Amino acid sequence: MAKKAGKQKTNQSTKPRRSTSGKKTTTRDKIVGLAEAVIGDIAKAENPTLDVPTRALSNVSFDKRTGIIEMGEATSERPFFDLGNAKRFMQTVLMSSELLKLQDQMKTTSIRDMFYRCKHTVEGSKEETFNDQDESDPVIEDLEVTLGALREELRVFANPDGAMVGPMTIRDSGDEIALSRMGSGGWAVPSIVEADVIEFIKCDAKFILLVEKAAIWSRFNEDRFWEKHKCMLITGRGQPPRGVRRLCFRMADELKLPLYVLVDNDPWGYYIYSVVKQGSINLAFESARMAVPQARFIGMSAYDAAEFDIPMNLSIRLNDKDIQRAKEIMNYPWFAGRHWQREIKHMLKLGVKLELEALSNKDFSFIADTYVPQKLKKKNWLN
Amino acid sequence: MAKKAGKQKTNQSTKPRRSTSGKKTTTRDKIVGLAEAVIGDIAKAENPTLDVPTRALSNVSFDKRTGIIEMGEATSERPFFDLGNAKRFMQTVLMSSELLKLQDQMKTTSIRDMFYRCKHTVEGSKEETFNDQDESDPVIEDLEVTLGALREELRVFANPDGAMVGPMTIRDSGDEIALSRMGSGGWAVPSIVEADVIEFIKCDAKFILLVEKAAIWSRFNEDRFWEKHKCMLITGRGQPPRGVRRLCFRMADELKLPLYVLVDNDPWGYYIYSVVKQGSINLAFESARMAVPQARFIGMSAYDAAEFDIPMNLSIRLNDKDIQRAKEIMNYPWFAGRHWQREIKHMLKLGVKLELEALSNKDFSFIADTYVPQKLKKKNWLN
Repeated sequence: MAKKAGKQKTNQSTKPRRSTSGKKTTTRDKIVGLAEAVIGDIAKAENPTLDVPTRALSNVSFDKRTGIIEMGEATSERPFFDLGNAKRFMQTVLMSSELLKLQDQMKTTSIRDMFYRCKHTVEGSKEETFNDQDESDPVIEDLEVTLGALREELRVFANPDGAMVGPMTIRDSGDEIALSRMGSGGWAVPSIVEADVIEFIKCDAKFILLVEKAAIWSRFNEDRFWEKHKCMLITGRGQPPRGVRRLCFRMADELKLPLYVLVDNDPWGYYIYSVVKQGSINLAFESARMAVPQARFIGMSAYDAAEFDIPMNLSIRLNDKDIQRAKEIMNYPWFAGRHWQREIKHMLKLGVKLELEALSNKDFSFIADTYVPQKLKKKNWLN
Repeated sequence: MAKKAGKQKTNQSTKPRRSTSGKKTTTRDKIVGLAEAVIGDIAKAENPTLDVPTRALSNVSFDKRTGIIEMGEATSERPFFDLGNAKRFMQTVLMSSELLKLQDQMKTTSIRDMFYRCKHTVEGSKEETFNDQDESDPVIEDLEVTLGALREELRVFANPDGAMVGPMTIRDSGDEIALSRMGSGGWAVPSIVEADVIEFIKCDAKFILLVEKAAIWSRFNEDRFWEKHKCMLITGRGQPPRGVRRLCFRMADELKLPLYVLVDNDPWGYYIYSVVKQGSINLAFESARMAVPQARFIGMSAYDAAEFDIPMNLSIRLNDKDIQRAKEIMNYPWFAGRHWQREIKHMLKLGVKLELEALSNKDFSFIADTYVPQKLKKKNWLN
């Protein structure tokens, strides 16, 4: 019975389930539903069993139609009366009861906090419920996929990071915030940006510019690029954290804003772009609500050095790790397009990578005044 | 002549020089002064020489009276006509001319950007002005100490990080921002928080709480600790970056707010606190304008586990690196006080470290509702 309930829930991961009364199923309902299924099994003297969608490369595929990396239908059983599964079953039930408290108390907390919340010595034994966070994090991920609820909907977050400014007014936890009046610092993007926390009140932006590096973001902000070009300017400081990705998703989805990604020209930059666009293999179950398949790669391209006349001595030679990574990336199905193969091959042929900061050799504001505007105007981006 | 000018400037590093007209010397004046001294040497057919204060452990001392780590008077000569010094001389003059452009254009930029700005092939040779950033960063630090100007006054920054909320209104680059209405994200603390960028307009805060971890900061913010206790709530996400330290300095100095530092109970937590309070050895020349000697260590203390009845299984055993670091720290003169020796010895005796998140085992909000308020009330902190 619990098994069936688990399966049903998996299918809901991309579309919220509605109960017969037409009311949307809340995350709380989902947690309670899981508990009730377990109790139901016990009442019927059956072996309580959780059925957890498999989070592994074998159960991941790239959907060409939707343009995102998706999780398959494979699941694995986790019966309570089974030596190899009893502990993980206990951990999953314990974690879900703590997650329910978060829902009831309307609080949010970190995955590290959840580890400490759930850690104790099992009564009458010397056994710990959890020994370290490496045990509790996967249990949270199990629950995400089993319940079909994003971690953020479970009110749990990783470390927040990133900043945003632009011609938009939001409501964050009740505070109305004009993102066009955030000075040099910007609004710090929280980890949880679900609609019950962050509301979009008014938006005059025409697109989103996601900048890999915080220092480059500061350049665009200081030059008030977002004002001149009417855009939301956001950075995730390297690989964007979940809050930044989810916020980009929501702005692209709800406000229909095109998303441009600006990264260094190296394999890691390509990869950052691809995670924003298609999602990641490890967290494929979130792609449907995190990935933005319309995202555009505005730069830097391996062709930019020639196009913008950037001296060769500002490039950095690709090292063995870069070359290996570039070849790996070329084999991902989402980089299979002719234009991407051409791009990556050109980088390998030149044998160098190029950082966004290299553009400063011309002028401090070359990147904001010339480079990006020209690329936008000429529609010189990759899809 | 340049040598003498250099020396004079060193002495000003703690107090801004005033010219004979009584006007404050600007950073621009300082850069131009350096250039004029070099030109003066050339005009007199002397060997142009920069005299750079020595940035080394040998030239650093802990001033018990002021409570900060300070730089000594030692300097080293850098003559142009000297095989071992000519390149560094050229680099220093080149960098200062680029820094002057930043002043004139009223722009700020990153140290990485400055590397690319200054990098080119010397005309008629195959020699690069700078090969990599490891060469340009020390030149910026040389100029900081030689000119007696903080990096931020030179308009150059490292990566920004950190967030702040609280009962205060600031003006950031012309935008008036109410930090009490910043939602769950907060205001992202920029890297440069000098008075010409960030002004304090109105402040109802009674103290500052600097929280090591971003996730814990979110807990305090969600619980509106800053409203109940009238405090500025700030995080630097680990070792606070320069912007966060400088902002704490300015709030402590200009607004006379006491500063409490909340870190994990481990040697790294003690060290984070000490850098905030006394400054660091590497950057001793900045202590006078970055360190907050009045800062108080609010926790976590090795005595907290007993005091707050935290189960032992939530502690983590100290590893060899922790123990070694703790012993190093005990030998720093600024940890020589009896109370600090007692504190660190107790941690070593218990043989464990304790994370802030361990407090969540009691209740999600135990840290914000009970732990910190009780410590503040009982004045249970270390100085």
